[in-house]
Amino acid sequence: MAQVKPTHNAGLGEKYIDESKRLINKDGSFNLKRNGAHPWQARSLYQWFVGLSWPAFLSVIVLLYLLTNVFFACIYLLLGVDSLRGTEPGMPMFWSAFFFSAQTFTTVGYGAILPTGLAANFVASLEAFMGWSGFALVTGLLYGRFSRPSTRFLFSTKALVSPYQDVKSLQFRMVNMRNNIMMEMEAHVMLMVLDKDSGHRRYYNLKLETRFIYFFPLNWTIVHVIDEESPLYNYDADKLKQLDAEILIHIKGYDDTFGQTVHLRYSYKYDEIVHGARFLKVYQSDENGNTHLDLNKIHDYELIN
Amino acid sequence: MAQVKPTHNAGLGEKYIDESKRLINKDGSFNLKRNGAHPWQARSLYQWFVGLSWPAFLSVIVLLYLLTNVFFACIYLLLGVDSLRGTEPGMPMFWSAFFFSAQTFTTVGYGAILPTGLAANFVASLEAFMGWSGFALVTGLLYGRFSRPSTRFLFSTKALVSPYQDVKSLQFRMVNMRNNIMMEMEAHVMLMVLDKDSGHRRYYNLKLETRFIYFFPLNWTIVHVIDEESPLYNYDADKLKQLDAEILIHIKGYDDTFGQTVHLRYSYKYDEIVHGARFLKVYQSDENGNTHLDLNKIHDYELIN
Amino acid sequence: MAQVKPTHNAGLGEKYIDESKRLINKDGSFNLKRNGAHPWQARSLYQWFVGLSWPAFLSVIVLLYLLTNVFFACIYLLLGVDSLRGTEPGMPMFWSAFFFSAQTFTTVGYGAILPTGLAANFVASLEAFMGWSGFALVTGLLYGRFSRPSTRFLFSTKALVSPYQDVKSLQFRMVNMRNNIMMEMEAHVMLMVLDKDSGHRRYYNLKLETRFIYFFPLNWTIVHVIDEESPLYNYDADKLKQLDAEILIHIKGYDDTFGQTVHLRYSYKYDEIVHGARFLKVYQSDENGNTHLDLNKIHDYELIN
Amino acid sequence: MAQVKPTHNAGLGEKYIDESKRLINKDGSFNLKRNGAHPWQARSLYQWFVGLSWPAFLSVIVLLYLLTNVFFACIYLLLGVDSLRGTEPGMPMFWSAFFFSAQTFTTVGYGAILPTGLAANFVASLEAFMGWSGFALVTGLLYGRFSRPSTRFLFSTKALVSPYQDVKSLQFRMVNMRNNIMMEMEAHVMLMVLDKDSGHRRYYNLKLETRFIYFFPLNWTIVHVIDEESPLYNYDADKLKQLDAEILIHIKGYDDTFGQTVHLRYSYKYDEIVHGARFLKVYQSDENGNTHLDLNKIHDYELIN
Repeated sequence: MAQVKPTHNAGLGEKYIDESKRLINKDGSFNLKRNGAHPWQARSLYQWFVGLSWPAFLSVIVLLYLLTNVFFACIYLLLGVDSLRGTEPGMPMFWSAFFFSAQTFTTVGYGAILPTGLAANFVASLEAFMGWSGFALVTGLLYGRFSRPSTRFLFSTKALVSPYQDVKSLQFRMVNMRNNIMMEMEAHVMLMVLDKDSGHRRYYNLKLETRFIYFFPLNWTIVHVIDEESPLYNYDADKLKQLDAEILIHIKGYDDTFGQTVHLRYSYKYDEIVHGARFLKVYQSDENGNTHLDLNKIHDYELIN
Repeated sequence: MAQVKPTHNAGLGEKYIDESKRLINKDGSFNLKRNGAHPWQARSLYQWFVGLSWPAFLSVIVLLYLLTNVFFACIYLLLGVDSLRGTEPGMPMFWSAFFFSAQTFTTVGYGAILPTGLAANFVASLEAFMGWSGFALVTGLLYGRFSRPSTRFLFSTKALVSPYQDVKSLQFRMVNMRNNIMMEMEAHVMLMVLDKDSGHRRYYNLKLETRFIYFFPLNWTIVHVIDEESPLYNYDADKLKQLDAEILIHIKGYDDTFGQTVHLRYSYKYDEIVHGARFLKVYQSDENGNTHLDLNKIHDYELIN
Repeated sequence: MAQVKPTHNAGLGEKYIDESKRLINKDGSFNLKRNGAHPWQARSLYQWFVGLSWPAFLSVIVLLYLLTNVFFACIYLLLGVDSLRGTEPGMPMFWSAFFFSAQTFTTVGYGAILPTGLAANFVASLEAFMGWSGFALVTGLLYGRFSRPSTRFLFSTKALVSPYQDVKSLQFRMVNMRNNIMMEMEAHVMLMVLDKDSGHRRYYNLKLETRFIYFFPLNWTIVHVIDEESPLYNYDADKLKQLDAEILIHIKGYDDTFGQTVHLRYSYKYDEIVHGARFLKVYQSDENGNTHLDLNKIHDYELIN
Repeated sequence: MAQVKPTHNAGLGEKYIDESKRLINKDGSFNLKRNGAHPWQARSLYQWFVGLSWPAFLSVIVLLYLLTNVFFACIYLLLGVDSLRGTEPGMPMFWSAFFFSAQTFTTVGYGAILPTGLAANFVASLEAFMGWSGFALVTGLLYGRFSRPSTRFLFSTKALVSPYQDVKSLQFRMVNMRNNIMMEMEAHVMLMVLDKDSGHRRYYNLKLETRFIYFFPLNWTIVHVIDEESPLYNYDADKLKQLDAEILIHIKGYDDTFGQTVHLRYSYKYDEIVHGARFLKVYQSDENGNTHLDLNKIHDYELIN
């Protein structure tokens, strides 16, 4: 193993994580903390809006709408009772102003309630303009959300150390849950281990049997042969645990629907590596002789003595 | 042929299709089935909307509009006869509510029919907001549809086994139906055969005489020389049929109009390969000595002895 | 010259242009004709809208707006005099209907003129929806127009055969008229000649002294050294004319403003090549010792003995 | 040093800057001047709008809105007092026209003030259409602004000449202020020196210990080893000053949030290089044994004798 050299090109540093935690989380984010950045530096408002979940996004938008109307209702109230005419008899002035604001902001403008006087008319002009441009803003945000490639890949829950031809291999597999076809997929896999003597983390590139495929319509089993040149050659399960090992995975490919290159990150911690096991088939034959891929079987494996 | 090694980098698996079917359909999709994915996993709503044909897309949008109006009309009806005023005498209450809803959702807001009371006013405020943001949503979907590269390439209906210099070659040709110029086109062609003994499919890269061109303004004849290093060297028409052979084609290029890289997929099944034939010219001279490309001739070939 | 081999990777074919015309026009388009494609095949509606000049685009949009209003005005007229109420006394019914249509389509909806009866109300609902979605459509088209990289490069009007160190060289230069910085520019230059015996066109790659630059803030002089390995080594001006020679240029680079790769095409015909000349400096010093690039001098050269 | 050859591929020319100024400014722009381009050639209107700061952009939009309303108000005034009806008693005619214009442009259309007669109705139709399409325009501009990758990288204020293993090295470091993960970062560093004899600038590529990293979640220290092959081998601080030296930096990487490749430019002038210093750690341990990156420490270094 002395002859296998660690790589410098991980870009992940040598220190900054707690031994008990994984480096790459299951959703592809990194398990890192940092101080010193003000929140507005850490993320642009646009990134924040684009990164929200749909329910959160919609809630924020509706809330902003309601708050805007409350804000403008208060302004009309401050301008006095005479600033709006045509209000419904018996309806509280605040609600009349609120509904007038909503009618103005959305530019629905029924015209039953009307601004009166220069001040109220001017405020209404500005509010209509705010609605007009707020709309443009929401459109931009929505398209920003839509146009982010939304991939849904499933990795096998375990990586296996399996027999492969005459030797052993590290294997894991992945499947595309979406119907879109991925093209020109490229995988890069690294082993990260903790050198307890020096307290440094080391990174080793793992050579893959196939690191590039032209088409990725369905599933891909990624295989690293554990031969003498592999940094894993001398490591058994105990040693990997002792080294706090983690397999770091980076896969990129071209997504046909979005016309964009997509990057995936994933990792297997030492306790997610099963030694001496073999993946089961993901294909089933039906009565007509057709074969189907069963996505749910992507995780299935059997132990071998 | 023993010396020609199959490739691992097809990414298409070794089993999962019925012998009688082609792997790549004529529209570039793959002929694969899979189970286990819930529909909402297989495709995001956005991908579904972007993938619809224009008539289907417009129908869905109009239908959603009508259903939204029916939905809100029912709400106004539930709020009681007094929730709307200014309705036209003699018009059924449902239709008055329906038209009021349409006027509110589209923010046209004539103001003849008006919401009355807190509840109706609040519902109308929300509906106007829904119209306001639904609009932003449709804009995002429409741009998503527009900005997908829409290519229209025509492949010759047959691939030919033609004489080429001293040897034989596999040839097919393609033409760009659109006026846009493609740049930096790159082709990758594979042979897929079924090894009936093992039941496995094998993939072989076919070396191309020219796999990269800088400009693609018009037509391209793609040529694989069938020399001793070609996996096709020992296969005649009968053998290709017996092997259930399919020529898999992947072409990518840069589309100037959309500023995007475009990927094409196509295939020829063994019965779409004509042995001993030659493509006819696609150019015609007119009376002024100018030469024209005739797109309709892209398929034309002649048999040779 | 026998040892210099033509290249196959031009992608421009061997026949299809008239000898008297250039292959690549000054605007980067190709001088090619083709038959057999229906207009709707040659260009998608979206590409057509995106490719229009701004005046033409705006005219088309305004025209569509007016025609839509005329169309709906006619429908309201067909529905009868009673289909609209609140029309202005004395205004012709057509114009009342036209203005009502405009108020509905743009969703301004003043509410003075109002639809009456089920039919007119329903038509108005649909028209408001059409305006609502037409709007989304125009937004998509506008963004499509905006987001196309709009480059403005200036090539020197002439290419020069200039002395370069001990030998001769072919040189031309280009400048970026816009303020944006281009990155990672890459040039590819070919010589196209007509072999009159066979009637075929031949393409030769011209090796460049520098084919890649990291930054392109200002100007770039592209140099092909005419040494013994150059296909131009044995060609003087007369020979180039006789061969109907054309220098074909393809340059790509990354545009920082649009975040996109941009492709340029240009060419010099034999009569745009000046033999025995040298480019003049494009830099001027001012009284403060600063040097400025003068874009207008990009074309300037001097003849040498 | 005679054996270290300058490079041609800088693309930055040999003359055009004043000795006292840096070539690359701290914001990544180039310190260049040019004449001869009309302003509309130097930048498209779209680029101008997209490049504005947010406050400037919003001010321009609001100003355009107000001017549009003033313009249309004047037109309605020119059409005469009778062109608008329903105006508020006592409100000056200009303001009535201004508010009517605002109600029409934003398509809020209350309907209290109404156009009268063919001319006023026609103008109002056009204004509503202008608002309708101006809206689409602003949406396009906003999305153009949003979708530009907005990176916020921090470079150490100084580059250091530090000991590295047995030799010296030039080092600087950078940190990503945003939460987004950058992928496949690639650095390219050049030394620019002024040859005072010939008055020419020379560029030298500096070989990096690691020029490519797969992941860039946090910080990156970029190291150039100053061995015998380095152009810096024979230069001390005085010599660098005398040569007016500047270190030019180009870094590109893939931004996951925007799905785009991002290009950074930066530079260190000779007086921003500290000789004989070492960067301090940017990581801190807290009481739980976790390590944190402290962004504020990116600049910290200590002098070494």
